[in-house]
Amino acid sequence: MNEFKLIERYFNWACYHSVSLGVGDDCAIIDATPNTQIVTSVDTLIEGVHFPKNTSAADIAYKALAVNLSDLAAMGATPKYFTLALTLPELNEAWLSEFSDALKQLAAEYQLDLIGGDTTKGALSITINIIGEVETGKALLRSGAEVDDLIYVSNTLGDAAYAWQQIEQGGTPSDFCLERFNRPTARVGLAQALVGMANACIDLSDGLEQDLSHILKHSKVGATINIDAIPLSDPVSVYINTTQDWCIALAGGDDYELCFTVPKTYVEALKTIEKNLGIALTKIGVITKDLGLDIKGLNKTCASYQHF
Amino acid sequence: MNEFKLIERYFNWACYHSVSLGVGDDCAIIDATPNTQIVTSVDTLIEGVHFPKNTSAADIAYKALAVNLSDLAAMGATPKYFTLALTLPELNEAWLSEFSDALKQLAAEYQLDLIGGDTTKGALSITINIIGEVETGKALLRSGAEVDDLIYVSNTLGDAAYAWQQIEQGGTPSDFCLERFNRPTARVGLAQALVGMANACIDLSDGLEQDLSHILKHSKVGATINIDAIPLSDPVSVYINTTQDWCIALAGGDDYELCFTVPKTYVEALKTIEKNLGIALTKIGVITKDLGLDIKGLNKTCASYQHF
Repeated sequence: MNEFKLIERYFNWACYHSVSLGVGDDCAIIDATPNTQIVTSVDTLIEGVHFPKNTSAADIAYKALAVNLSDLAAMGATPKYFTLALTLPELNEAWLSEFSDALKQLAAEYQLDLIGGDTTKGALSITINIIGEVETGKALLRSGAEVDDLIYVSNTLGDAAYAWQQIEQGGTPSDFCLERFNRPTARVGLAQALVGMANACIDLSDGLEQDLSHILKHSKVGATINIDAIPLSDPVSVYINTTQDWCIALAGGDDYELCFTVPKTYVEALKTIEKNLGIALTKIGVITKDLGLDIKGLNKTCASYQHF
Repeated sequence: MNEFKLIERYFNWACYHSVSLGVGDDCAIIDATPNTQIVTSVDTLIEGVHFPKNTSAADIAYKALAVNLSDLAAMGATPKYFTLALTLPELNEAWLSEFSDALKQLAAEYQLDLIGGDTTKGALSITINIIGEVETGKALLRSGAEVDDLIYVSNTLGDAAYAWQQIEQGGTPSDFCLERFNRPTARVGLAQALVGMANACIDLSDGLEQDLSHILKHSKVGATINIDAIPLSDPVSVYINTTQDWCIALAGGDDYELCFTVPKTYVEALKTIEKNLGIALTKIGVITKDLGLDIKGLNKTCASYQHF
């Protein structure tokens, strides 16, 4: 099968938005919505680095798109389009069909259009470039945190990292943690609800310690958080109680939850959002004038995820 | 070095355009220009597939960006932004420095902003997603060719494919052909000059035979071209005279020249463009009502480039 038949068969879908020209020309052409800004981000997943070798095509597709959705979510943006650069060791139609079905399904959930791509031969890797829109000037940035803002995170931390650690050690993660690892939920709706409320926001991909530090650096502030306040699922809670390895939740990475800061006046409004969306929002600390990240109750330093 | 220092050191440049937020947040934010459409495309280069293993970092950077510029050029668009997903087997600062310098230099030529990226560990590959703008409704498409349009190509064909073939056979290409292979020139200015004149346009990445066929398919027309009219450089001309291997120019790929169709009324205007830009434009045939591509003087079929 040549590339054109492959695209025609697996990646030429109908469009949700005003795509003047999608897959099939040199480029895609899209129409920008008035009074919005364009938001874009790119993430690559590589076999053996970001997912284990035996991961299903469906899980790979899901995660590749979800991690990009998570980046857009962190800006409070509405996802609209994406391009897919897919590198495959061989042309396996069963694999491609499963990959394409899962990708299409998640894209449909967010009304995301696949508007372009490239397929090449090589070690399995997936690069998605996602494009969204945000009302002009309303994006949630890393740079807006203010002294005395409360710091929140969504849901629980460390679940995916715990699954990954167990896989690497030859163990069997719980279904819950494995699902959190393979199928992270991008917090698109939550972030959109936080627009106009949160002063700063980031998605947790490298781990709370490193990612919150980005907010602090960009906002030129510090923070104090309480280790006991970090929200944990039952499996991770049991693991940490046994091992005292808080680093799984602080620096394990792959959470794809949001960390955001809000003025105290919004505490009640957050409770409403939490109830409406059914996503736990936990206060873990406060933004301070003193620079640096002070983690109360942690008596060691976690090694952050290093890309090299 | 962690990813953030790497980005800071090698990929955090000043911006030419109204980038509200570039490298350093979850996403980049850009402002669309009124009355324009957004044009985007993605291309991956993989070591050993798209360039030989001993290619310099500078040549790799140049080609990775140039082939994407070429896709945008084919639409008559103005390149403005790009994201870079870079997968490296190891962190080699000398390599990164050379790569980043060459990328920055070519980006500066076109006032292109690097607005985001991802660096991952794995087999060397470079995925660039380029974003540009075109006046609403003015893009050059594959689908506009009309019966009796004249078919033109820019410059010469087969130079890069001839270099690649010689490298693969253990030979030494001429400096001229090697330069054409490593450093293709995207025909951005030419394509912009053709807006309002050309009915259809494509950039030649897979070879004239395959790429012109895309125009024919999308425009629902056919074409007759004359093999003797294909513009050739001296080295490729000598090679073809010796071997009769016309396929190097028809299906070798990697030309990154433009193939476009124009109504006859524009023949004189094209001569002016040719003179002003110093790029040879050669008439190679005509669009016909009868479907299919008829190559007069070719008594064989060329095997087109297959991605798998």
